Amino acid sequence: MDLLSPLLEKLDGLDFQSIYETDFLLTWEKSMDELEAVFIVADALRLLRENNVSSRIFDSGLGISLFRDKSTRTRFSYASACNLLGLAVQDLEEGKSQITHGETVRETATMISFMADVIGIRDDMYIGKGNAYMREVAAAVQEGKESGVLQQRPVLVNLQCDIDHPTQVMADTLHLIHYFGGIEHLKGKKVAMSWAYSPSYGKPLSVPQGVVGLMTRLGMHVTLAHPEGYEIMSSVEELAKKNAAASGGAFRKTSRMAEAFKDADIVYPKSWAPFTAMEKRTALYGRGDFNGIECLEKELLTQNALHKDWECTEAMMARTCKGKALYLHCLPADISGVSCNRGEVAATVFDRYRTELYKEAGYKPYIIAAMILLSKVRDPRAQLAALASAAIPRSR
Amino acid sequence: MDLLSPLLEKLDGLDFQSIYETDFLLTWEKSMDELEAVFIVADALRLLRENNVSSRIFDSGLGISLFRDKSTRTRFSYASACNLLGLAVQDLEEGKSQITHGETVRETATMISFMADVIGIRDDMYIGKGNAYMREVAAAVQEGKESGVLQQRPVLVNLQCDIDHPTQVMADTLHLIHYFGGIEHLKGKKVAMSWAYSPSYGKPLSVPQGVVGLMTRLGMHVTLAHPEGYEIMSSVEELAKKNAAASGGAFRKTSRMAEAFKDADIVYPKSWAPFTAMEKRTALYGRGDFNGIECLEKELLTQNALHKDWECTEAMMARTCKGKALYLHCLPADISGVSCNRGEVAATVFDRYRTELYKEAGYKPYIIAAMILLSKVRDPRAQLAALASAAIPRSR
Amino acid sequence: MDLLSPLLEKLDGLDFQSIYETDFLLTWEKSMDELEAVFIVADALRLLRENNVSSRIFDSGLGISLFRDKSTRTRFSYASACNLLGLAVQDLEEGKSQITHGETVRETATMISFMADVIGIRDDMYIGKGNAYMREVAAAVQEGKESGVLQQRPVLVNLQCDIDHPTQVMADTLHLIHYFGGIEHLKGKKVAMSWAYSPSYGKPLSVPQGVVGLMTRLGMHVTLAHPEGYEIMSSVEELAKKNAAASGGAFRKTSRMAEAFKDADIVYPKSWAPFTAMEKRTALYGRGDFNGIECLEKELLTQNALHKDWECTEAMMARTCKGKALYLHCLPADISGVSCNRGEVAATVFDRYRTELYKEAGYKPYIIAAMILLSKVRDPRAQLAALASAAIPRSR
Repeated sequence: MDLLSPLLEKLDGLDFQSIYETDFLLTWEKSMDELEAVFIVADALRLLRENNVSSRIFDSGLGISLFRDKSTRTRFSYASACNLLGLAVQDLEEGKSQITHGETVRETATMISFMADVIGIRDDMYIGKGNAYMREVAAAVQEGKESGVLQQRPVLVNLQCDIDHPTQVMADTLHLIHYFGGIEHLKGKKVAMSWAYSPSYGKPLSVPQGVVGLMTRLGMHVTLAHPEGYEIMSSVEELAKKNAAASGGAFRKTSRMAEAFKDADIVYPKSWAPFTAMEKRTALYGRGDFNGIECLEKELLTQNALHKDWECTEAMMARTCKGKALYLHCLPADISGVSCNRGEVAATVFDRYRTELYKEAGYKPYIIAAMILLSKVRDPRAQLAALASAAIPRSR
Repeated sequence: MDLLSPLLEKLDGLDFQSIYETDFLLTWEKSMDELEAVFIVADALRLLRENNVSSRIFDSGLGISLFRDKSTRTRFSYASACNLLGLAVQDLEEGKSQITHGETVRETATMISFMADVIGIRDDMYIGKGNAYMREVAAAVQEGKESGVLQQRPVLVNLQCDIDHPTQVMADTLHLIHYFGGIEHLKGKKVAMSWAYSPSYGKPLSVPQGVVGLMTRLGMHVTLAHPEGYEIMSSVEELAKKNAAASGGAFRKTSRMAEAFKDADIVYPKSWAPFTAMEKRTALYGRGDFNGIECLEKELLTQNALHKDWECTEAMMARTCKGKALYLHCLPADISGVSCNRGEVAATVFDRYRTELYKEAGYKPYIIAAMILLSKVRDPRAQLAALASAAIPRSR
Repeated sequence: MDLLSPLLEKLDGLDFQSIYETDFLLTWEKSMDELEAVFIVADALRLLRENNVSSRIFDSGLGISLFRDKSTRTRFSYASACNLLGLAVQDLEEGKSQITHGETVRETATMISFMADVIGIRDDMYIGKGNAYMREVAAAVQEGKESGVLQQRPVLVNLQCDIDHPTQVMADTLHLIHYFGGIEHLKGKKVAMSWAYSPSYGKPLSVPQGVVGLMTRLGMHVTLAHPEGYEIMSSVEELAKKNAAASGGAFRKTSRMAEAFKDADIVYPKSWAPFTAMEKRTALYGRGDFNGIECLEKELLTQNALHKDWECTEAMMARTCKGKALYLHCLPADISGVSCNRGEVAATVFDRYRTELYKEAGYKPYIIAAMILLSKVRDPRAQLAALASAAIPRSR
């Protein structure tokens, strides 16, 4: 009890009950109180684990995963989160099944959900598709519940889509909360969310979109920097503006990396694909033109190569606040001279922040577990207090 | 206790003890009492889960799965059943190992079984092979037990073979039991087990064979309908005749779909491959002639295309008893105008029965779990009563 | 308590505390007391399981597996061991992620370890690479722990590398302990570790190296036999000589199988690749020359074919002590006339020892579980006594 009391008291002032039995698809569909509850529960779960106290809330149950893109970090984070709560992970591998878009989404979603508590989905490569697909699945399990087919409705966790990457940016933000000593200290902090050069494939837009969509709500001053042609979705930009206006933060744009880095407290230099390329890819995918997709990949790498100077160098870092901005990345980063000739970040910069970066990543399993717990447990505060008080050892 | 009492009382009059420590390979190797026990235990497990009561009977243990054909539904049903009872699923992926027919079956079966409680196998594509393979595995683990190599003998569950699909047809039947209000109401019901046109690959014979092999035992009047060339195994037809004679049911054959549908209470229109094609495929497989198998696939789709009129249309449904026969399918169905141009069933028919179809599918995890529980627990009635009385929450 | 008391008393005289929180990478990095503790704990876990007593020491937790070579036996042994202790297995599949050598090993190792208790790795095909890779991973998680990134440091278990195959040879040895009635009876026993002909691919050197590296420590008289060109790593030969000198055993070499078999108490005839071929393969791999590797495979099979007379025939067995040496193999064996025309062993010899071979394999899950338990539990004796005394049924 004493272990968690200070944390659980923080839940008292928050109105987060409506997160119960809902999906986590976009951070901006959640209230600030709900997001704060996620941070607090994540910290509580971490504290339990650090003290070798079991946080199993499921005696049995399945966490389904569906990855439509390669993944190590998110796959292991999701598996860790499920395991921490007592769920077994069952992968839905499309190669081994026949799930496709269209009519069968509804059916497959139902078929895998008879005993599913959670469904985690990553589908991030096609603009207009990934989040929409998640909503198709959500509608299917909702219908299944209402028609009596499913005894329970599994909740969905967005493990990265075309629009947002909520588990990543929530983990990033929890890292900031700990780094700066509290969520209240994030207000007014300057964030440079900047495009950076990468010689690898056309990466999703979900991280920059997720960052500007979330951090503007925390009263932070977010500057989005990218070369022309690398716009993010305009709807997310509009959202960021509104967020900033409401929170007392700011949202600005620039086409110069150096400008964004000026006096920044936090920098997040990261590559993503040109928006029009993403749209072309979606069209090619719709036609099943995989040759076309391959050609497009080459094209956009050529386009990327025009912007090799967008690198987070020591000189660039020197422009930040006292030269000591916190460097963030969702990993893996393209490190110049290490994983590629020229990349997103200089090796010395990356090395200096390595431990912080790994800590940042380490919050993700707890963020996912907190999202699951809050959506599945009616009274999270009582449940967490009960876990602390039972104090069943996780490992004997 | 009260929760399950009415169900558990039904077990009293049944003689099902001999199902303990046996494999579930064919429904007709089990007595009617044993099959009824499976239905009752499946319902009991469902009731526990609906009331959030844990049905874990294993503290640790493995459920091995071996799928030799693509699968989503059965794979998830098996994983759900194992998880419900406390077993972790471990896939034996042949691509990652070297299991083959012949000498090594015995060895591999032993090697995977040191800590296995259950082995679920799907092997349905080759006539004369799938069920035989399961018996090879069963013999190997039996020998392992007797020679002291295995501390325990894992039990096998047939997740679909060339002869039968017991978990499917038992789930179908449990659906009928609930739909018609009791197993005693199935007596005399007319079933149309009919071939239907499909533009997709040559599907196994296990469902029609399983249906005529099981439903004739329940006193049902089963009519098997198919175009010439689409015979099922003659041994199963013989069995169906004997079953019907013994149960007071009936088994008839026709080469006209419309005749089978006349006054039917239940229709099960579903595609399967021509029998001779299945035999050819087995021979080609034996020679490792995968090109030949591909050519054969085209050939049999051409043959299928001669029978596009075998479709479960509204007109066909109108011929059934009051036009309201219950439509069954093992899913996924080939739906005309939805998943294909012309298929097994009209979209309006399928849509009208969608909820019932999904409920039908929802019984499968419980059927599998009941098969496992009955084969692993010496006194299932006492065990289930103990679970109900302990009332450990599945999810807190 | 009574169940395990006689076994646990054996732990009293042993000094094995330093195995706690260490990796198991090579048997010769462990003291004899530590190895004996592994044997005793393995037997204790087996006894618990035989008596249906749960040996779960983890309420939740992950056992990560990384297999860089096909595997059934070791994969299932590892999964069984993890399950027995309460850990869920999460595979790191390189096809689904992007782990590679170099910079990213450190990062990936950290990313998969936030909630990992154990990491099991098999990487055996390239001389100078496998064990080195394990040490890279170990260094990464050590650094992660020290820098505060990881709350706990997962321990590593070598599931086969280029140098040693500790879980295999420890299981082999536990089999010998039971077969000969105690570890003290192994002293003076004659072991023939012999190359044997195989028509299949170039197998790793880890088994012969592991055998001579371990059995010479037990006071056994080990003779290593192979044709010219099939040398093992010279460092392991040197080690074997020193071991034998210290233990009162012996280590000899011969280029004649018959000589090694003369009066042997134990024979271990098994194929492995020519050492220079292994080195060439490593060089080709370093250049990414997979065509070259394929050509090399053919070359070394041609070289193998010059030594078809290296077969464990009945005549060869007749030369052993009373004609009744115990035949060992790590399985699968290449059996003449069964899995190949000519192979490592005659079918009649293999058949006569089949049950013993399967028992030998059956120790592996317990050996792995014992390695994990000893590295994760501070007071194994008390923990095992507590498990025995709690006597929670594994299966109800």
